[in-house]
Amino acid sequence: MRRQISFMDEDFLLDSEMARVLYHNYAEQMPIIDYHCHVSPREIAEDKRYENITQVWLYGDHYKWRAMRSCGVAERLITGDASDYDKFRAYACILPNLIGNPLYHWTHLELKRYFGYDGVLGPDTCDEVWKLTCDKLAEENMSVRGIIRQSNVKLLCTTDDPADSLEYHVALREDGTFPVKVLPAFRPDKSVNIAAPGFVEYIGKLGKTAGVEIKDFATLCDVLQKRIVFFNALGCRTSDHAIDTFAFDRKLSFGQAVSIADVVFKRALVGDKIDPEMENIYKAALLRFLCREYTKYGWVMQIHMGVYRGANSVMQEKLGPDTGYDMIRGESVVTAVQGLLDAVNSDGALPKTILYSINPSDNAAIGTMIGCFQYTTEESEGFDWAMPHMQQGSAWWFNDNLAGMKAQLESLANLSALGKFVVMLTDSRSVLSYTRHEYFRPILCSFIGGLVEQGQYPADMETLAQMVCDISFNNTKDFFDFNVQ
Amino acid sequence: MRRQISFMDEDFLLDSEMARVLYHNYAEQMPIIDYHCHVSPREIAEDKRYENITQVWLYGDHYKWRAMRSCGVAERLITGDASDYDKFRAYACILPNLIGNPLYHWTHLELKRYFGYDGVLGPDTCDEVWKLTCDKLAEENMSVRGIIRQSNVKLLCTTDDPADSLEYHVALREDGTFPVKVLPAFRPDKSVNIAAPGFVEYIGKLGKTAGVEIKDFATLCDVLQKRIVFFNALGCRTSDHAIDTFAFDRKLSFGQAVSIADVVFKRALVGDKIDPEMENIYKAALLRFLCREYTKYGWVMQIHMGVYRGANSVMQEKLGPDTGYDMIRGESVVTAVQGLLDAVNSDGALPKTILYSINPSDNAAIGTMIGCFQYTTEESEGFDWAMPHMQQGSAWWFNDNLAGMKAQLESLANLSALGKFVVMLTDSRSVLSYTRHEYFRPILCSFIGGLVEQGQYPADMETLAQMVCDISFNNTKDFFDFNVQ
Amino acid sequence: MRRQISFMDEDFLLDSEMARVLYHNYAEQMPIIDYHCHVSPREIAEDKRYENITQVWLYGDHYKWRAMRSCGVAERLITGDASDYDKFRAYACILPNLIGNPLYHWTHLELKRYFGYDGVLGPDTCDEVWKLTCDKLAEENMSVRGIIRQSNVKLLCTTDDPADSLEYHVALREDGTFPVKVLPAFRPDKSVNIAAPGFVEYIGKLGKTAGVEIKDFATLCDVLQKRIVFFNALGCRTSDHAIDTFAFDRKLSFGQAVSIADVVFKRALVGDKIDPEMENIYKAALLRFLCREYTKYGWVMQIHMGVYRGANSVMQEKLGPDTGYDMIRGESVVTAVQGLLDAVNSDGALPKTILYSINPSDNAAIGTMIGCFQYTTEESEGFDWAMPHMQQGSAWWFNDNLAGMKAQLESLANLSALGKFVVMLTDSRSVLSYTRHEYFRPILCSFIGGLVEQGQYPADMETLAQMVCDISFNNTKDFFDFNVQ
Repeated sequence: MRRQISFMDEDFLLDSEMARVLYHNYAEQMPIIDYHCHVSPREIAEDKRYENITQVWLYGDHYKWRAMRSCGVAERLITGDASDYDKFRAYACILPNLIGNPLYHWTHLELKRYFGYDGVLGPDTCDEVWKLTCDKLAEENMSVRGIIRQSNVKLLCTTDDPADSLEYHVALREDGTFPVKVLPAFRPDKSVNIAAPGFVEYIGKLGKTAGVEIKDFATLCDVLQKRIVFFNALGCRTSDHAIDTFAFDRKLSFGQAVSIADVVFKRALVGDKIDPEMENIYKAALLRFLCREYTKYGWVMQIHMGVYRGANSVMQEKLGPDTGYDMIRGESVVTAVQGLLDAVNSDGALPKTILYSINPSDNAAIGTMIGCFQYTTEESEGFDWAMPHMQQGSAWWFNDNLAGMKAQLESLANLSALGKFVVMLTDSRSVLSYTRHEYFRPILCSFIGGLVEQGQYPADMETLAQMVCDISFNNTKDFFDFNVQ
Repeated sequence: MRRQISFMDEDFLLDSEMARVLYHNYAEQMPIIDYHCHVSPREIAEDKRYENITQVWLYGDHYKWRAMRSCGVAERLITGDASDYDKFRAYACILPNLIGNPLYHWTHLELKRYFGYDGVLGPDTCDEVWKLTCDKLAEENMSVRGIIRQSNVKLLCTTDDPADSLEYHVALREDGTFPVKVLPAFRPDKSVNIAAPGFVEYIGKLGKTAGVEIKDFATLCDVLQKRIVFFNALGCRTSDHAIDTFAFDRKLSFGQAVSIADVVFKRALVGDKIDPEMENIYKAALLRFLCREYTKYGWVMQIHMGVYRGANSVMQEKLGPDTGYDMIRGESVVTAVQGLLDAVNSDGALPKTILYSINPSDNAAIGTMIGCFQYTTEESEGFDWAMPHMQQGSAWWFNDNLAGMKAQLESLANLSALGKFVVMLTDSRSVLSYTRHEYFRPILCSFIGGLVEQGQYPADMETLAQMVCDISFNNTKDFFDFNVQ
Repeated sequence: MRRQISFMDEDFLLDSEMARVLYHNYAEQMPIIDYHCHVSPREIAEDKRYENITQVWLYGDHYKWRAMRSCGVAERLITGDASDYDKFRAYACILPNLIGNPLYHWTHLELKRYFGYDGVLGPDTCDEVWKLTCDKLAEENMSVRGIIRQSNVKLLCTTDDPADSLEYHVALREDGTFPVKVLPAFRPDKSVNIAAPGFVEYIGKLGKTAGVEIKDFATLCDVLQKRIVFFNALGCRTSDHAIDTFAFDRKLSFGQAVSIADVVFKRALVGDKIDPEMENIYKAALLRFLCREYTKYGWVMQIHMGVYRGANSVMQEKLGPDTGYDMIRGESVVTAVQGLLDAVNSDGALPKTILYSINPSDNAAIGTMIGCFQYTTEESEGFDWAMPHMQQGSAWWFNDNLAGMKAQLESLANLSALGKFVVMLTDSRSVLSYTRHEYFRPILCSFIGGLVEQGQYPADMETLAQMVCDISFNNTKDFFDFNVQ
């Protein structure tokens, strides 16, 4: 331990000498692959600019909205008609209450990195920071592309609906002036969630992208298959699924599941209410189909488990999804997901997979589940082995903080092979979030450095440096097979 | 870290210099509001005295009984006919086995604070401590009121059944000599738990308090409403519910639920067995009704989740409830409680709420659930915002220890706004338990101080001191709207 | 903290001065009782020898297989036809990836203790270690018995099927030259798991051991009873059960459960498919019967909860059970097991019990569950009390690592009486695993020493030394009533 640490200085979260060496000499230099985020491809294509910090921070960040509500801020100042300045001021005023919250750290990392501000945001400095950030945002390099570029990002995957035209991805490709690879990621949740409101309309829309009317399950699969081909042609390497609730019927073969799914799908199209049992059979059938397709293209399937979305019906109705009303479910879907993976594996079609659970209590179950589906068909000639087939995803959403990251790293190291881990991702709507790698990487280096300093691992710098670089960048490149240097 | 720490010295649990400053200069001085305890209002009204330490420690403390059983002590020496001295001696003898157990710390905190004993209780010191405590308990200021008074308590809420006459609360109010506010808290579990033994008798008793025969659900609600008015008149600001098992049917409106509840209630009154589905609908209907009433008076609803009570039927039969045979359930009721809160919120009648789960695995789920129901109708003029609407309760019962408190603080800080937290409560049957604030507050100061010493929060003493005082006292006053200084 | 720690030196995992004193002066010297392992009694009886380290490490250790798969090693080099050397080389090559994994530590502890190797195994040292271990294994004292003997083991319990002839146990007893007590442990899972494949064949085999045809539940019980007598005669003191999934019907008396179990059993024998509800009633009836028998002989019942076995059907089919395809379930069986224990307790037949859950999220629930069934009929004359009736088992399988052990110790200390704990067990197939006590005991000493150094427990060396020796050895001897010195 150092004698003196000041607030978020250059050794922030680096709690040993070994951690500092590993971070400053290795991890800090590595470029970023952001394989799952919610940045808008349109904003990248159009190289959007912001007038003030509220537009970047508070127009769409439901993490901050939730924190403001938790401090008694009125909704008018959060999503309401208050001025941009008043909203920022409200956030600045409640910030001191967020001691120990990752928002406190992200806020200051972003102010430091992109705005050169080394102070502390709070009621007293609110005006100073408002002015500084307004001025800074007017500078040339503070457009969306400018911010991404200065963040040392090599590649990022946006999150895209199969019905999306991907026009901005096409435009970016045709443009060719942006050195960062921007790839789509395939998120077919709206096709899977048959009991959700708007399903029928969505299927109509999806059909239009392929110029067909989707009347049965086979056509749905056919259209999705074509969209996968299209996404793949634009460089897509990954799909993403939210599995909020799920049960898996282990007695049904793929063929049987598809037959039932066809009936259920047709009933849904005519507006019938679908009960949970039928919903789950449909979901499982479609997921089994999609896994086969992902496997064909070597895509990585990401599964995000266990969220309760829109837990406050009144506000969900008023503000729509992704507005800060989601929570962690008390019960686990891990065993149901195992059923799905096992069936898909028996179908011979288990794609490379990354599993995330929103409930940290699932860490151990997931850490052991991935171990049940590891395999490789490659055989090494030398000392280097292939990447494994399955990964536990980095601490996600509500766990995307110091304690959550440490817990995930510790669990993963105990139950799997940390050296093969594929780093964190921003999962963010904001391009300022690349600073989260300045949060994760020191935690990683402190975890690894701590093991060395406690005599749990040899102080072999060559191996350690390689491991830190692999986890920070190389493993991700290899696992997804991304074409970057 | 200090160089030398001795056993439970004045810096007990204070693990950094910042922690010591925050505790000794600020937190330690703050008075106590104990918003949930099981101290008997009668014992306060009658200013009960104790003859010996066994009467205080071992007559009713099932934490200690459980610990003694866990060390192989025979029941005769726990709840049986052994002498007070022999019971104390048994406890003293097993105490060394309780290394790392909060009882070990509470025992010595109480000996130090109230009896001036700085030694270590064990087989060798058993007689010395017995004599010392007997002598001390004979002193004037060691009555129930004396102990509370010297504990710097400003206000405490007992736990009271709606059928209770509150005679001792009335007496305390009329007496007027006791400077500590003693308020009732409304705990209507016996009305809610329709399938529990003794329900019919209880409803009969409850009816008598209002001079009516309760024959239907409407009358039950009417009587409870009147009791709420009565409790409120005596200063009550909070209700308390145990939700051990629960499922919530999201399809029923309040009106539909009430209709079914009426049928179920009448069946229960004639002795029919109520199945779990009907039990849950009844529970939910009554809880929805009660929420409306609590909201009218601005009460805080406390919900304690997930206990399995009386897990040993033989001993439950022999000794009754609250005798040390309760456990944590393996499954979570968090999602069911979300259903209830969402329905009540949609009814426009969600009272301020504090959620506790006995299962520490629920921490993260609760931390995110409260964030889904935060709102305020007030709008700040300046920098200070209202208290939020929802709270995660302090580490409770089996979690009321160093690890449990740290875990709750860390989870809450990550998922909500620690600066707005409403401190811990004793939940105790014993007035000696006010020392638990000397346990919680150092842990709080170490948590906050640690964040500062690790560079996670600025070393801004003014803000930190205010935060520690707010969490220790002011937030509770504001959240419950208690009329104390 | 020491200034300088080197990789796995003599103070490995000892993080305070008090920890070092407690370990080196006390815990380290204590002999070992391994009350649950999977070492083959045949290999002990025949005093098996190994030709190379692959035979010891990689022929049967599914922990290592899982780790290799998690690093992308091809199955041919794990369970396939690759040479012993190539398999070892593959393990050595992936080992650096296992930073923070207990395998990394166990591997080096075993190399140090049994092979005198102080280096680091990895690609560079692979050949050196291969040669060294081959040479060493050829030495006289490196037979199975030699390894056990040099490990300071006083007693070990193997894991044996009721249908087993126990011929090797008989042989060991008749031989009499091996100073270590080798006792059988009774594991009747195959009789309990009525819905598992091979049940009918197994029952046939079990009947043959008793010379009867088992046609009904009563005969099954009768045969098992006779096997218990036989096991007991060979010194057996414990049974072991895996409860993977379970539900307990609280409405059925033992008699009712037995009647239904008889019907279910007969249907299973003729090949009927048994649904989960009937399966659980059968399981519960047989477990209730077995508890009565265990109680008669003062046996300790061990229950291992919550594993999903064979989660990968393809590999389960190919390689069989215990090949590294098991995982932690997402849901808990704790409440169902409470139902069983409560019923058995009400039957007056609750044996001494040790509860383990594979899911660390169950720690708190188990810690409170054991407290509900503690009792003793003995009454102490002096200061020493009997051992309690129930124990939470040591961190098990996927939790058998630094974090898991710390979590279990902390939870147990908070919720029960750590001073009465019955130490860890190897649960291993390999006799080299006795080094795991060199892993557990330092963790125990660091936990206890840390409490002292933080001022949470007095620095009373006599009490602390006794506690460390009790937990390391004496408590186990007393709890199981093992006849060793």
